[in-house]
Amino acid sequence: MVLAEFSMYPTDKGESVSHYVVQIIDHIDKAGIDYQLTPMGTILEGSWDEVFGVISECFKILEPQSNRITTIIKVDYRQGKESP
Amino acid sequence: MVLAEFSMYPTDKGESVSHYVVQIIDHIDKAGIDYQLTPMGTILEGSWDEVFGVISECFKILEPQSNRITTIIKVDYRQGKESP
Amino acid sequence: MVLAEFSMYPTDKGESVSHYVVQIIDHIDKAGIDYQLTPMGTILEGSWDEVFGVISECFKILEPQSNRITTIIKVDYRQGKESP
Amino acid sequence: MVLAEFSMYPTDKGESVSHYVVQIIDHIDKAGIDYQLTPMGTILEGSWDEVFGVISECFKILEPQSNRITTIIKVDYRQGKESP
Repeated sequence: MVLAEFSMYPTDKGESVSHYVVQIIDHIDKAGIDYQLTPMGTILEGSWDEVFGVISECFKILEPQSNRITTIIKVDYRQGKESP
Repeated sequence: MVLAEFSMYPTDKGESVSHYVVQIIDHIDKAGIDYQLTPMGTILEGSWDEVFGVISECFKILEPQSNRITTIIKVDYRQGKESP
Repeated sequence: MVLAEFSMYPTDKGESVSHYVVQIIDHIDKAGIDYQLTPMGTILEGSWDEVFGVISECFKILEPQSNRITTIIKVDYRQGKESP
Repeated sequence: MVLAEFSMYPTDKGESVSHYVVQIIDHIDKAGIDYQLTPMGTILEGSWDEVFGVISECFKILEPQSNRITTIIKVDYRQGKESP
């Protein structure tokens, strides 16, 4: 299992990016993966492929809407742990 | 195109992780993707799917060798740029 | 005000780093700064100098105990916001 | 000694942030610290206090010019190594 915290937002849309962050959170919620919101990002829990599948889908939601997008992902893999 | 800088290493193997980093760099080199080594990680250039395909392959090389792996990925997407 | 999420741990101590993370959290708690724990790190809220003062103190607690330490810090500054 | 890679830029100024990045690089260059530019950030080498002194000065250059600033810092401390 991995825990992956990520944040993803356009940097060409001005100070507030909530319009874009909401779309991502909505997608994650519908994806059915375990997640937790923090003030600095979203933490996903699942297999590597599940987690990166969802993150890639989020990118593809933002990609057509923005010319520049920053993404930061921090992953903690711990063998055999449900929650590291 | 995206630029993605990443570092990935086991944290249960002691101070030196070069044995593992070498395997990752070797895989990236054979993968045929544009890359650049820095003192703090590896920068990949390609489409989102190319880049994350290679990063996922690197994880799968380390996964059977380690109980705990840290991965940090920073991505800069810029529409229509070969090199952001 | 800034929100700063950080994680800091030795990478030469094996799979479990809880002995070290506990020391950091204990120090943050005594420092009197606003903070929130997440499964992936600690979020501090305050001025730039307050936040980096505390992070530097945490490093100085771990430095004499370890030969290799990884630190990741992500900062969101938003002018005039108490909570970005 | 620490190696610290960091990137710092306003996110309320549109797609291109080169006007701000140039000011930071200029400051680092004048500060006399060892550094290396990469396509994704700047790597500083020095003691913890030297490195974070310079990063804090960079923040104070951007702070009066922007309402929202993202900073990402990744630090690798290795005891007794000049270059980890």
